[in-house]
Amino acid sequence: MSAGKLIGVGVGPGDPELMTFKATRRLGEADVVAFFAKAGNESHSRAIVAKHLRAEVIELPLYYPVTTELPTCSAGYRDVIGGFYDQAAAEIAAHIEAGRTVAVICEGDPLFYGSYMHLHARLAPRFTAEIVAGVTGMSGCWSAAGMPIAQGHDVFTVLPATLPEGELTRRLADADAAVVMKVGRHLPKLRRALGRSGRLARAIYVERGTMADAKMIPLTAKPDDDAPYFAVVLVPGWQTRPGRQT
Amino acid sequence: MSAGKLIGVGVGPGDPELMTFKATRRLGEADVVAFFAKAGNESHSRAIVAKHLRAEVIELPLYYPVTTELPTCSAGYRDVIGGFYDQAAAEIAAHIEAGRTVAVICEGDPLFYGSYMHLHARLAPRFTAEIVAGVTGMSGCWSAAGMPIAQGHDVFTVLPATLPEGELTRRLADADAAVVMKVGRHLPKLRRALGRSGRLARAIYVERGTMADAKMIPLTAKPDDDAPYFAVVLVPGWQTRPGRQT
Repeated sequence: MSAGKLIGVGVGPGDPELMTFKATRRLGEADVVAFFAKAGNESHSRAIVAKHLRAEVIELPLYYPVTTELPTCSAGYRDVIGGFYDQAAAEIAAHIEAGRTVAVICEGDPLFYGSYMHLHARLAPRFTAEIVAGVTGMSGCWSAAGMPIAQGHDVFTVLPATLPEGELTRRLADADAAVVMKVGRHLPKLRRALGRSGRLARAIYVERGTMADAKMIPLTAKPDDDAPYFAVVLVPGWQTRPGRQT
Repeated sequence: MSAGKLIGVGVGPGDPELMTFKATRRLGEADVVAFFAKAGNESHSRAIVAKHLRAEVIELPLYYPVTTELPTCSAGYRDVIGGFYDQAAAEIAAHIEAGRTVAVICEGDPLFYGSYMHLHARLAPRFTAEIVAGVTGMSGCWSAAGMPIAQGHDVFTVLPATLPEGELTRRLADADAAVVMKVGRHLPKLRRALGRSGRLARAIYVERGTMADAKMIPLTAKPDDDAPYFAVVLVPGWQTRPGRQT
């Protein structure tokens, strides 16, 4: 029996054409393909790789027990989600111990804000683990928008919109370029922070960045009413600052 | 005559297997493939795509007139490099005006700290321009190191090592996770800033991140003597902080 192993496979931001050769090769070698999904929904990452799955591959869907029902800072959320990752890691470990190669497919890049990291932390100390880097969701967004984001000596920052308004304002003012994630219901607060930090005029609102139905508009043209959780706001650095273009 | 266009093609961090399908498809459609290189050296991006170049494609090498000879903040550097980008954009514009599709190949992602942005800023207002997102060099580094970099509500920052020591220290202390670029001769200063910000113990030094001869070691095990300009230091967030793992 050959030794099993774990592979975290980045499949890019959504467009199947933004998968790498390495990702498809590793999928072709995998005995088991595991993916996260919201219960009752199709997995985004599985949809991206669908045409590269071998007919005989074992599919292992991992359904989140909670998503937005509980605040992520609560002890209740941490207990439920921690138990879920423990159980998912145990299922994957059983396949690896049986000599199988398990590819966990991840939107974007596996080690950049990805759920895969929770499995990696539990399994990499016990088994051989390989990572296939992927195009991140944020690269997909600024590329689709044709928006140079950072250059030269720029300081670039990724911020969650969940931060308190004062901290968002301070951090936006302190960075040359920024990407704000997890926008959702935080949009009104984020808009105030962008205004107070002098960044509102150049902020771009993006929904479904690399999908065919992507929406990309200046944030000043977007109402506060209905931003989804995964919407992002881009604050480009270099291009918009006078005197920086060589 | 069909209309020409510009395409900024991200070719990933170095391993040709980390190119996307879209990148190779766009290369196959291009009449002209342009790439930056240091005079007298092979172009890294051309080496990545070499096996995907059509025999009849027109190659347009763009040789930097200066690289590290002049300080990048000097007026002399800005004049020389600005003139170089003007000239390169003019050569590309001539091809586009003749109806040709020009692919500018870029290591990593075209709009994330890439030289392509200087051409994009000059040409995108005049011609159709498309961007093909790529896997960034930093994703290549943390993937090769198997090092989860940021998760959940982490604040992630990219910093140039050229910043003054006090500012580096402040910004490192203020971020959960960081990537420091352009390390080179700034390594002793960066090491002091990492120490003063409490980040030295978890800092990883990376050279030639996704090449076969990559070097990845704890920064504490790396002497200050000989870091190349393109070396990076990774400061992982989530994994190393107690109480954050769910």
